[in-house]
Amino acid sequence: MSSTVRIALDVMGGDHGPDIVLPGAEIALIRHPDIQYVLFGDEARIREILARHPRLAAASRIVHTDVVVRMDDKPSQALRRGRRVSSMWRAIDAVRLGDADCAVSAGNTGALMAMAKVNLKTMAGIDRPAIACLWPTMRGESVVLDVGASIGASAQHLVDMAVMGAAMARIVFDIEQPTVGLLNIGVEEIKGVEEVKDAATALREASHPGLAYHGFVEGDDIGRGTVDVVVTEGFSGNIALKTAEGTAKQVADYLRAAINRSFMAKIGYVLARGAFRALREKLDPRKSNGGVFLGLNGVVIKSHGGTDAEGFASAVDIGYDMVRYQLLSRIAAGMNNRPQVGAGVGRAVPVTDEMQVSS
Amino acid sequence: MSSTVRIALDVMGGDHGPDIVLPGAEIALIRHPDIQYVLFGDEARIREILARHPRLAAASRIVHTDVVVRMDDKPSQALRRGRRVSSMWRAIDAVRLGDADCAVSAGNTGALMAMAKVNLKTMAGIDRPAIACLWPTMRGESVVLDVGASIGASAQHLVDMAVMGAAMARIVFDIEQPTVGLLNIGVEEIKGVEEVKDAATALREASHPGLAYHGFVEGDDIGRGTVDVVVTEGFSGNIALKTAEGTAKQVADYLRAAINRSFMAKIGYVLARGAFRALREKLDPRKSNGGVFLGLNGVVIKSHGGTDAEGFASAVDIGYDMVRYQLLSRIAAGMNNRPQVGAGVGRAVPVTDEMQVSS
Repeated sequence: MSSTVRIALDVMGGDHGPDIVLPGAEIALIRHPDIQYVLFGDEARIREILARHPRLAAASRIVHTDVVVRMDDKPSQALRRGRRVSSMWRAIDAVRLGDADCAVSAGNTGALMAMAKVNLKTMAGIDRPAIACLWPTMRGESVVLDVGASIGASAQHLVDMAVMGAAMARIVFDIEQPTVGLLNIGVEEIKGVEEVKDAATALREASHPGLAYHGFVEGDDIGRGTVDVVVTEGFSGNIALKTAEGTAKQVADYLRAAINRSFMAKIGYVLARGAFRALREKLDPRKSNGGVFLGLNGVVIKSHGGTDAEGFASAVDIGYDMVRYQLLSRIAAGMNNRPQVGAGVGRAVPVTDEMQVSS
Repeated sequence: MSSTVRIALDVMGGDHGPDIVLPGAEIALIRHPDIQYVLFGDEARIREILARHPRLAAASRIVHTDVVVRMDDKPSQALRRGRRVSSMWRAIDAVRLGDADCAVSAGNTGALMAMAKVNLKTMAGIDRPAIACLWPTMRGESVVLDVGASIGASAQHLVDMAVMGAAMARIVFDIEQPTVGLLNIGVEEIKGVEEVKDAATALREASHPGLAYHGFVEGDDIGRGTVDVVVTEGFSGNIALKTAEGTAKQVADYLRAAINRSFMAKIGYVLARGAFRALREKLDPRKSNGGVFLGLNGVVIKSHGGTDAEGFASAVDIGYDMVRYQLLSRIAAGMNNRPQVGAGVGRAVPVTDEMQVSS
């Protein structure tokens, strides 16, 4: 890594493409003047917008691409149409080639993950990548993964996610030993969560310098902030994430309806508007925008497709932090002595060259 | 069913036992004077409380039991200690014997489900029971199942849950063809949800008089009230439920903190307190208290263990409605022409005696 942080942007990704991505990139640049951008997309459109953003223009290099991965392309379609030629592929490819330290895209998740997997491959010893997000909690934020990279997870994959999520949490929260919980349901003796139980055994028995295993957590522990890192497989993780988003909207909606029902309440609202502003800010999904792809040989960040410039800037911020504080080498170090499922008392499992074959 | 609705109560269940169950039963009795209770529990304690509730006493018959299933008993422990002799078992047994039309317990979920399964058995053609709850939405309420009876679900079990959930929704919402959605994640071409896809095919291809299949829904559709019935397997369903509860609490907590931070906001709060009361009422978990066990040869309702009398009364109300509007025969009718997975174009699958063997 050079002293600058070089970020490749899929300028054409997301619902609004360059109109959001470029202003967002500038906001992040103001916060982190050591960013250098490589902008992949329609050169004419990019130049047009950069003309109004001289500061961003000065920190950017443009690479023209013709093909845009559409928001509704299936991963296989995206790969067929966009491999080697799309702005999304090229942004990821810049990371592989060492021309950039990370790639950020607001394009469609399935396509981005497929291209990232095909192009960057998974890290030595890791079967499958995961998507981690920052989840606002009563105590601050937690890292939650997997929120939708793949469905189902072996015990070892859950353990690997614990190690990777903890590496990310060490950076984001600046703590040495983040607490890690495995998401489970509070019904005893129910069949079918053997993977979760086996992962728990491995995590409990092995002491790992990079994390403090807490135990099982339930759905309501996520928002409570019981642990720094919540680990689950991608189906339930995605459903938890979307359900929480829906519930937050629903409560805000109830509140609005209740206030609009009476004149006194409206007056009260005006007096309390500072409090409501604080609430809105706390619930602002833009602040925690940015899914981090973990387990690949490169840093890739997925921004929400429908976000605005402020939201896209948050995704760039996360990418910046992951590069600046060396996510990849932290994960690699963590994997070097990851707890191993079924190893009895956990022991260090060095990553060998042989294991790279499996990626 | 007699002209009264006979409800068996596990008086000893829940965090507070008779102190909550009996006052709760009286609240429900006032709303439904045609309820007759059979009270299972410690006769001396029950009599003591009934002395202060003459109305409830007049509508109740007491059956003394010595054993109480504890809130932290594992299902196997509960069965070992409580089979035939506990208040929980006896309440369920009253349903099996035809002495009651339904059983309500605030005892521990795992034990209650295990006893209900062992004692009542699953209905003809149904492999596994499910737990359905009423979920408050922006448009009113929806039925969501399974929220934790079992983990994982075959395509046919998902279809059966659609049929059962729709039968319940017809009663609760008084509509002929409730809309049904299958919970899924919005990532295309991801491996591992074959069951969900196959269930979708069966539901789409078969026309079923009792439900209107809507398609896939995501986590945020639950709170939005996109469909009347949301179907998923028990792990993700339980996590969605707990996550939503946690998020609602979290938002309320933010709001409280924001209001307490300024004097003006506090004044505003006082003026808008009607609105806040409405919000609290809307979010009141007691109102939607009562998990319905579906797929058994009998109606069993699980009340939240930590609820108060008002909350327990809601659970009794649900049980009352399920009996009064004939949940079981509606499910049986629905199962008679349930869509069959893998049958190509869905066709009616009559339930034969042979199938009862599998229960």
